[in-house]
Amino acid sequence: MSEHIGKTGIVVRNIPRADPALIDELQRFGVATIHEAQGRKGLLGTSIRPIQQGIVTSGSAVTVLVAPGDNWMFHVAVEQCRPGDILVVAPSSPCTDGYFGDLLATSLKAHGVRALVIDAGVRDTHTLREMGFAVWSRAISAQGTIKETLGSVNLPLVCGGQLVHPGDVVVADDDGVVIIRREEVPQVVVASRTRADLEEQKTLRLAKGELGLDIYNMRVRLAEKGLRYVDNLEELGD
Amino acid sequence: MSEHIGKTGIVVRNIPRADPALIDELQRFGVATIHEAQGRKGLLGTSIRPIQQGIVTSGSAVTVLVAPGDNWMFHVAVEQCRPGDILVVAPSSPCTDGYFGDLLATSLKAHGVRALVIDAGVRDTHTLREMGFAVWSRAISAQGTIKETLGSVNLPLVCGGQLVHPGDVVVADDDGVVIIRREEVPQVVVASRTRADLEEQKTLRLAKGELGLDIYNMRVRLAEKGLRYVDNLEELGD
Amino acid sequence: MSEHIGKTGIVVRNIPRADPALIDELQRFGVATIHEAQGRKGLLGTSIRPIQQGIVTSGSAVTVLVAPGDNWMFHVAVEQCRPGDILVVAPSSPCTDGYFGDLLATSLKAHGVRALVIDAGVRDTHTLREMGFAVWSRAISAQGTIKETLGSVNLPLVCGGQLVHPGDVVVADDDGVVIIRREEVPQVVVASRTRADLEEQKTLRLAKGELGLDIYNMRVRLAEKGLRYVDNLEELGD
Amino acid sequence: MSEHIGKTGIVVRNIPRADPALIDELQRFGVATIHEAQGRKGLLGTSIRPIQQGIVTSGSAVTVLVAPGDNWMFHVAVEQCRPGDILVVAPSSPCTDGYFGDLLATSLKAHGVRALVIDAGVRDTHTLREMGFAVWSRAISAQGTIKETLGSVNLPLVCGGQLVHPGDVVVADDDGVVIIRREEVPQVVVASRTRADLEEQKTLRLAKGELGLDIYNMRVRLAEKGLRYVDNLEELGD
Amino acid sequence: MSEHIGKTGIVVRNIPRADPALIDELQRFGVATIHEAQGRKGLLGTSIRPIQQGIVTSGSAVTVLVAPGDNWMFHVAVEQCRPGDILVVAPSSPCTDGYFGDLLATSLKAHGVRALVIDAGVRDTHTLREMGFAVWSRAISAQGTIKETLGSVNLPLVCGGQLVHPGDVVVADDDGVVIIRREEVPQVVVASRTRADLEEQKTLRLAKGELGLDIYNMRVRLAEKGLRYVDNLEELGD
Amino acid sequence: MSEHIGKTGIVVRNIPRADPALIDELQRFGVATIHEAQGRKGLLGTSIRPIQQGIVTSGSAVTVLVAPGDNWMFHVAVEQCRPGDILVVAPSSPCTDGYFGDLLATSLKAHGVRALVIDAGVRDTHTLREMGFAVWSRAISAQGTIKETLGSVNLPLVCGGQLVHPGDVVVADDDGVVIIRREEVPQVVVASRTRADLEEQKTLRLAKGELGLDIYNMRVRLAEKGLRYVDNLEELGD
Repeated sequence: MSEHIGKTGIVVRNIPRADPALIDELQRFGVATIHEAQGRKGLLGTSIRPIQQGIVTSGSAVTVLVAPGDNWMFHVAVEQCRPGDILVVAPSSPCTDGYFGDLLATSLKAHGVRALVIDAGVRDTHTLREMGFAVWSRAISAQGTIKETLGSVNLPLVCGGQLVHPGDVVVADDDGVVIIRREEVPQVVVASRTRADLEEQKTLRLAKGELGLDIYNMRVRLAEKGLRYVDNLEELGD
Repeated sequence: MSEHIGKTGIVVRNIPRADPALIDELQRFGVATIHEAQGRKGLLGTSIRPIQQGIVTSGSAVTVLVAPGDNWMFHVAVEQCRPGDILVVAPSSPCTDGYFGDLLATSLKAHGVRALVIDAGVRDTHTLREMGFAVWSRAISAQGTIKETLGSVNLPLVCGGQLVHPGDVVVADDDGVVIIRREEVPQVVVASRTRADLEEQKTLRLAKGELGLDIYNMRVRLAEKGLRYVDNLEELGD
Repeated sequence: MSEHIGKTGIVVRNIPRADPALIDELQRFGVATIHEAQGRKGLLGTSIRPIQQGIVTSGSAVTVLVAPGDNWMFHVAVEQCRPGDILVVAPSSPCTDGYFGDLLATSLKAHGVRALVIDAGVRDTHTLREMGFAVWSRAISAQGTIKETLGSVNLPLVCGGQLVHPGDVVVADDDGVVIIRREEVPQVVVASRTRADLEEQKTLRLAKGELGLDIYNMRVRLAEKGLRYVDNLEELGD
Repeated sequence: MSEHIGKTGIVVRNIPRADPALIDELQRFGVATIHEAQGRKGLLGTSIRPIQQGIVTSGSAVTVLVAPGDNWMFHVAVEQCRPGDILVVAPSSPCTDGYFGDLLATSLKAHGVRALVIDAGVRDTHTLREMGFAVWSRAISAQGTIKETLGSVNLPLVCGGQLVHPGDVVVADDDGVVIIRREEVPQVVVASRTRADLEEQKTLRLAKGELGLDIYNMRVRLAEKGLRYVDNLEELGD
Repeated sequence: MSEHIGKTGIVVRNIPRADPALIDELQRFGVATIHEAQGRKGLLGTSIRPIQQGIVTSGSAVTVLVAPGDNWMFHVAVEQCRPGDILVVAPSSPCTDGYFGDLLATSLKAHGVRALVIDAGVRDTHTLREMGFAVWSRAISAQGTIKETLGSVNLPLVCGGQLVHPGDVVVADDDGVVIIRREEVPQVVVASRTRADLEEQKTLRLAKGELGLDIYNMRVRLAEKGLRYVDNLEELGD
Repeated sequence: MSEHIGKTGIVVRNIPRADPALIDELQRFGVATIHEAQGRKGLLGTSIRPIQQGIVTSGSAVTVLVAPGDNWMFHVAVEQCRPGDILVVAPSSPCTDGYFGDLLATSLKAHGVRALVIDAGVRDTHTLREMGFAVWSRAISAQGTIKETLGSVNLPLVCGGQLVHPGDVVVADDDGVVIIRREEVPQVVVASRTRADLEEQKTLRLAKGELGLDIYNMRVRLAEKGLRYVDNLEELGD
């Protein structure tokens, strides 16, 4: 399937999607926990940042490959979206133009799309925040785009240094964006639940002042590695 | 006039300014719409970012060229400012020092200056936000500056990669900063009104779920360019 | 003492700390004023940014050297912290991983630690803001870390391009982070008071519209340097 | 197959490779021509740069996923290499450490490996150039690495923002690095030959001073798009 | 004239050029000396770097505004070039694509063009170096471009943060690129000669071991500023 | 001693230096080997790059703190230099200006100074290479500097993120720059000799095709960590 990466001129109409209940449940774990729970993979690069604060979302990826400085494919993509989807967009060469603004956000919102993740720029950010349309992007730029060149919709693509297939699940919050392979969603939900439970218990103990050194039983292993305590710097000599 | 770019030791006292009513009206369109309306030009680079959120402003540019790490010319510039002006500042070589803080903001505010746009750093950002003095800058840095070297006031300069003449109109919001040539302000206002009206109508249709594909009549042209719909990835073969 | 920079496998238990009353007083001056008051030194690089807005804090540095992608030493460090401390963390080679999240924040908070300053990444930023645990970091990243390699606690280190000794005082606000040598705290507090008083008086005069040109008596020196006023650009000729 | 991206602890021993004659032929076209010939895809990001000048190479990708600051998997990978291979290495989180130096280069060279492409740092660059071992890397850094954590060998990975499968063909020159899917090598060679022939003919005509405007018959289309010639700027009016 | 910045769809056929003898003489001073001699202005940003070493060139600017990812205007520009010209190219929004390769270089060379200065990327860099066609660019990228959108030729533009008019003189060497206003060329040549003569004399004295402190008579002024000599660090006390 | 970091207006005349024979011997090991031999510390950040290729040098640090855009202290520093010294320069706030060119290089060369390491920019790079004066810098920029503000000579400073004391030993090659504490030079030379000998032996074995896996006896530990070999990807299942 990854042999189709980079192809243009194609729209795939039907894509498989994961179980909506599981997609929604993923929101309560957040990006950092899910990333750990699925074996520390799937994270987009740190240059993809939210334009808002305090929103966590999840949804099925509708992937859009666009030409540099050209947002034509967004309009093609809207028709392929269903409620609960998240648009994942990458340009075929690096570009920080503002591909996306309030008009397209209005259109996506009307079709139930939850968010945009884009490895390029967006504009109208004040209005987007007022509308409550969540966006994770590489840049903010008022520089608009044209509509001349075809890209593709629903082919696999690389966004933020990460391979994304259409139908993969996207979770995004203030920390960034993580991708969960569609086939792995059930097991990642289970692993995330376990991890979240464990963290909750540890949080309670840590909040009481217990040390991680004791909770995780680290003292022996630290000593084995050679950790040495001195009372003050003078003990170290010169 | 642009032959004076980079000169130092000069203050120009009288600069032409655009019609205040038009300057104020530009605020309601925002940076992205104006940039398109004036033919996609005049945008400052994306590294000039607001230190606050949710403020849109407009005003006449008072231009200030400063030496690296030296903010002496700010004090010279204040005297040349009138209510409704915006200070547009560029260093003669790249510098991220904090040229501007709450003292200078108090002074500019007392003279009716609306905002600062600076291709360098600022400090006291918390106080600036509390005072409601709007700033767009390349950096935030507590590193102060000295007062040793002359620059210039009200000569044309390049700020954020964009040529700015004194008296040009500056519009700035959460997306960034755009410059409108003073002579072109009337026509840009007219073009922005038209564009804003059109966008309003389109917003209504998009909000109802109509597709951009249909509103903009894109389907024929997409087909001519060769866009191909498939039901699923398997149809593409290997 | 600086000969210990970069050493690993050592924890120094007792570090000298400055007078708590003076540490607290430093908060009211803010980073920019203190930086000037102590002779324009001690500022961390501008890439160390707050993850929250509107918080100013101060405290005694507990220094932590960590391996790239390895946060084991945080747990060792917690045990060495006292109420009023600030953790200052640097990786031994550049790394943007999310070393620190809500669990460690809970632990530090339970021990009275006021903030984290880290020349690397953090995660769980939304929760950290909700908890009110203040952080200044180079990056935000959900990429977690492992616990395999020793670093050190309470040796001097370089963080944000600045040398920090354990027990030095850290002040941080929306502008960034400044370090005050422990031995110099009393004199820096005195100098900051003086500077803050002066600035208050100047603020009052500037707020009334008086010009810095007059308050600071700059006109003569500007003229000596050759500053020339012209009525308009045409006067300059070509 | 791409579901294995990011897995660790696995070494795949047998990977398919393309026809050696075709791999070698690709060297004569260079990266830019091949990139165009295969439909403008497969290019690694521009931050992956050669440490030498004037070398073009090609080979079969042996992929290596490494932990940040940990080069253990290189030694595992050498055993899986055959003459004509190129090592393609990516860290599981961003890292600029010097993973690779003259010892590993000696080992790879002894096994007939042609080059290294790495989305991280290398060291001993002077010796590498003297040895004639070609390297494309994101950084040069003398900071060595440890051997503690498993990665993987010969699973697909993302390097320089590009998906690479083991056995894909790598071509690299002074312009950068391009990946050709193994299955597509024959058709890409054919397309590259055609393109190179065409370019040769055009070069001859351009070298004689013929204009691209005429060779490519661009004048009509430019006029249709509205291109307007004026004799001098004054004609444009204000 | 600068009101035409950013316009597209226009080609200006006749541009004024400076005296060829003076243009050629500027080569012997180099970029750093000319920059000082003309009052420290006209320097392009440091991100515009040569792709070769050891070449210094000068020529008349033929300016080319291009769309992002679109090099169509290069072909239009060639027809407007005369022997001794240098192409100065800027994209209308930031782009690192490889706009320019060996074919266009062959064409420009055939028309006597001396060099390319481009605020974007180039490709075929090995061949360009072999051909001896000099290039200063922001990036090296094998990513080619399309031919769909009009830009302009011989309008003023901003390249590397610097305003360039058609016919301005460009001087470029290993240090970077400087622009001299066409009208100022004679005086800049005179000032550069003076400066170069002075530097030659100083070089002779410095080469004999004389100190700049004495040649420039700095000791008094340093003492006035408060410079203090101590025999060793201990003298400074704590 | 580090309490003097950032002070200005002071020149320390006498600094201790390490044994010249040991300083010279360090050149044969190179930066990467020394960095490992001294416990992986002392490396300057990777943004400090050589302007030439193929030169390795070593010497005693004469440290120079300069104001942004002001190179006055270079002239003061020359007088404090002895044959075999290396100038280590840092600006008090970030600056990429070209502080240093052929005149100062002539002066330093005349006094036997071996190289310059600067956390800022240099100019006249072509002439510097022709003169054989070695430089490691953060930037290349023709932008000259002024002589207005005092810095210091021979106080400790932070350069490239690393603390440097006057008299520390600097070793620099194509990989970058490493600092050796003066007091630790003898032991670092011994450790480097041992390491270099070991590497030579390993190089011989690796050159014959022996595997690092066997030379370093890694197979058991890799298996313990769970490394698993499969014959092909299909074995992994989905």
